Amino acid sequence: MKRKLLLALVATATVATAHAQVKVEDAIKWRQSAYATMGWSMGRIKANLDGTYNKDEVVKAANVIQAIANSGMGALYVPGSDKGKGWAETRVKPELFTDGAKVGKLAGDFNQAANELAKVAASGDAAAVKTAFGKVGGSCKACHDDYRKDNK
Amino acid sequence: MKRKLLLALVATATVATAHAQVKVEDAIKWRQSAYATMGWSMGRIKANLDGTYNKDEVVKAANVIQAIANSGMGALYVPGSDKGKGWAETRVKPELFTDGAKVGKLAGDFNQAANELAKVAASGDAAAVKTAFGKVGGSCKACHDDYRKDNK
Repeated sequence: MKRKLLLALVATATVATAHAQVKVEDAIKWRQSAYATMGWSMGRIKANLDGTYNKDEVVKAANVIQAIANSGMGALYVPGSDKGKGWAETRVKPELFTDGAKVGKLAGDFNQAANELAKVAASGDAAAVKTAFGKVGGSCKACHDDYRKDNK
Repeated sequence: MKRKLLLALVATATVATAHAQVKVEDAIKWRQSAYATMGWSMGRIKANLDGTYNKDEVVKAANVIQAIANSGMGALYVPGSDKGKGWAETRVKPELFTDGAKVGKLAGDFNQAANELAKVAASGDAAAVKTAFGKVGGSCKACHDDYRKDNK
């Protein structure tokens, strides 16, 4: 039991150290990059739903969203990164860093929606993809509404 | 047979239309974002190889690289995007748009290396991850050496 606790403490310290090594400007740049990559992928899926449906295209895009959703982007919200510039000035609201439970719920909803989207994309069922895509979009919006400045 | 050919032509036309709809500045921004997201992921894996190895961290990062590698980023090299600004000015050399076979080979090598990395990451074999990671890094460098301006 003692050993487990020690290991847990060491693990926590390691994670803390790893986080400390991420520079604020890098963290913001990587966040912006990951969101933009997901934005590209969402656009691709929308184009397939609105036009000719290509299963492979949708699978590729959904897999990107799923992998990034599950990547642990929380690690990029390092202390001090509520302000600063990556590719551009961050638009995050400071509340994201303090609303732990609410942010955790939003992140969990997003992960779940992204996993569901990848699952139904693989099945090739366009109607199911449309529903799952809507849920992912809704979970993006829910976070933007509360935690993105100049939201549009 | 005729129907198949017609379908192939329609599919090609649709893809061409979809590409035409991607604006040059968006294409460059999405390319830069996808590469930066992979850069973040490569850095995470390196930190795990150099420090305390955490299988879950490495799997998450490797899955991001794999998904983006297989996403079909070639679609983002739209005509006219040899110059222009996304988040920043593109550093792509114009030769990337004309060296079809060579670029295809480099892209294929990268995809293969990224798939191998994700596979061995899932196994948790850190030594195998180190080898596979080196191959991914080598395939990144091979393309940068030939097709990135101001390469460093």
